[in-house]
Amino acid sequence: MAASRAYLDWNSTAPLSDVAREAFLRVIAMPGNASSVHREGRAVRAEIEAARRKVAKALGANSASVIFTSGATEAANMVLTPEYRMGRAALPIGRLYVSAIEHKAVAEGGRFSPDQITSFGVTRDGVADLAELESLLAAHDPASGIPLVALMAANNETGVLQPVRAAADLVHARGGLLVVDAVQAFGRIALDIEALGADFLLVSSHKIGGPKGAGAVIARGETLMPKALIRGGGQEKGHRSGTENAAAIAGFGAAAEAAGGDIDARMQRLGRMRDGLEAEMLALVPELVVIGRGADRLANTIFFALSGLKSETGQIAFDLEGVALSAGSACSSGKVGESQVLKAMGFDPRMGALRISMGETTTDDDIAMALEAFRRVASRIKKADAA
Amino acid sequence: MAASRAYLDWNSTAPLSDVAREAFLRVIAMPGNASSVHREGRAVRAEIEAARRKVAKALGANSASVIFTSGATEAANMVLTPEYRMGRAALPIGRLYVSAIEHKAVAEGGRFSPDQITSFGVTRDGVADLAELESLLAAHDPASGIPLVALMAANNETGVLQPVRAAADLVHARGGLLVVDAVQAFGRIALDIEALGADFLLVSSHKIGGPKGAGAVIARGETLMPKALIRGGGQEKGHRSGTENAAAIAGFGAAAEAAGGDIDARMQRLGRMRDGLEAEMLALVPELVVIGRGADRLANTIFFALSGLKSETGQIAFDLEGVALSAGSACSSGKVGESQVLKAMGFDPRMGALRISMGETTTDDDIAMALEAFRRVASRIKKADAA
Repeated sequence: MAASRAYLDWNSTAPLSDVAREAFLRVIAMPGNASSVHREGRAVRAEIEAARRKVAKALGANSASVIFTSGATEAANMVLTPEYRMGRAALPIGRLYVSAIEHKAVAEGGRFSPDQITSFGVTRDGVADLAELESLLAAHDPASGIPLVALMAANNETGVLQPVRAAADLVHARGGLLVVDAVQAFGRIALDIEALGADFLLVSSHKIGGPKGAGAVIARGETLMPKALIRGGGQEKGHRSGTENAAAIAGFGAAAEAAGGDIDARMQRLGRMRDGLEAEMLALVPELVVIGRGADRLANTIFFALSGLKSETGQIAFDLEGVALSAGSACSSGKVGESQVLKAMGFDPRMGALRISMGETTTDDDIAMALEAFRRVASRIKKADAA
Repeated sequence: MAASRAYLDWNSTAPLSDVAREAFLRVIAMPGNASSVHREGRAVRAEIEAARRKVAKALGANSASVIFTSGATEAANMVLTPEYRMGRAALPIGRLYVSAIEHKAVAEGGRFSPDQITSFGVTRDGVADLAELESLLAAHDPASGIPLVALMAANNETGVLQPVRAAADLVHARGGLLVVDAVQAFGRIALDIEALGADFLLVSSHKIGGPKGAGAVIARGETLMPKALIRGGGQEKGHRSGTENAAAIAGFGAAAEAAGGDIDARMQRLGRMRDGLEAEMLALVPELVVIGRGADRLANTIFFALSGLKSETGQIAFDLEGVALSAGSACSSGKVGESQVLKAMGFDPRMGALRISMGETTTDDDIAMALEAFRRVASRIKKADAA
């Protein structure tokens, strides 16, 4: 990539960090399978268990409650099932309640059938409407099984933080379980599974500077678990079969250790850059809509809409100016779909929202490039309007 | 690992090959998400599509019919489901028939309930009993849906080749579908999905010298597909959601290209080493049982049993002599379970079978170390017997 590019799409995927690369390359050179009893196998096993402790520690969990998966989408599909067990006893789930702004990996509902899924809304600022959740839970039929609720910790498009602890209290008062997609929040706000009250956290390696190909389900306990999604050799205590992607897991562990530390300092730096850029963008175009600006947000994200600029053409325009940003969730095959998040917030989902998201190696030069690109793109729209 | 080790456990996992490492490291350095439309995303997308063409070509398939997964266990769980679709129409599967020597990833039956799974046996040489399959299919109740049959191309423990083409003809005559686990056969015998008559092939990257974390389902066509196991962002045309593990996929593509070439020459070299070692082992211990020796086998595998040597102690004894081998399938967490393969072949599953498996970088020195280790281990047993 030429030095003249600014990569500002960290919420889609973060570049591999140095600490993650180091761990990753060390383990990729090891020949063994972690399930083998010979020396080569045991060496790989030790790397996986060290990574498990690091991921657990970063999220205030016990390492025995960390189940590694191939990523957060698989992790979501693993926990979103009507079939749970409490020890040896079946614990049926009657219905899945998801916020209207969940990532598609959660919103699709995993192994629930569509008629078992109910969505609850968000405010205009993009914060989950817990009053609506409460009334849904009050109407829940316990004869069908307990309720399972999914609420993300921070939204991937807007960065808006969600009231997870309050949701957990509501859900637990009704005997339900709470799944928290912490993919975007991990490393950007302090997360402790006990303090959050989440029954399951979902995290991803590549969003925090680790390699792609690893993620995890973190359970608050060990006894209550979903029916395995991927069955076979019985790895991960039977919760996730398949040869462990040891190098990706080791890189994930290193990235998790880094993500759990120095959050305040790292986010203050990003927040200053973000606020500065946002202020300059608003000065250039006062009618710019910064989505979720009235709510607490992740410090690294700006989700903005400019009248006359569609998402797809906007992305391409910025790309040609040397700035990689996105139109929100990285959809499959480069399709730019309508944003369900904007729709849930009461905006016209066809409006042209774009997301700038930063990370640890983002520099002032990147921000300057983004601002210059924004200035050019906005001025072209103004001219087109005037013509 | 010290230079004095011989790694002879390639059927558990192959060391990363040079061509795979090169592709892998090139892509791991790329910052983008393959689903993003910006330049960084498109560069990653191009790597994935190039790998898809390589995997397809190595197996005689169309690249549009290659679905990347996190590995072969996930691939097996993806295709082993009662819910298929033919275009837009549902195509229900009534029952799953699996050979008694399938890997646990297949034998567990994925999304089938245990009462929907029937097993068919093998001969004493470890070859699937197609007469039994034929009578099972004759008794299949078509009102429940079509039959789905799983038969591996080569067994992971014995290396014994299976009559896939003949099974395909039987299955298709009954209107059924055939799933072929080609994990161990890939790169060791010529595989062409059309010639085999398989409806779905399952392959794994790390067994052919690619990175862990990638595998694939290869379909013979494009219209008949199982219900997705992992749902969300809609990657892999909706058949497998989740951010693609692009670096592992690129490494897999490079490994697949190598695996598809020069098979005869590579296997002749391994076969000579294998036959030489086997002959010397039999000369030292004439009562040695080489399992599956009467059948066509992969050229790289020796599965042997020595009276008085249990699998677990045998593995440890060889490990201490500097030789990494295994007791058959790499089970979870280093547990050495009873071999279902031995049991299916009519052997006492508690007998102490061990597997030597070789690969591209195996040297004559490795073989000499294995023979010396075998000589020492066998002589200790003889002394213990005499005492």
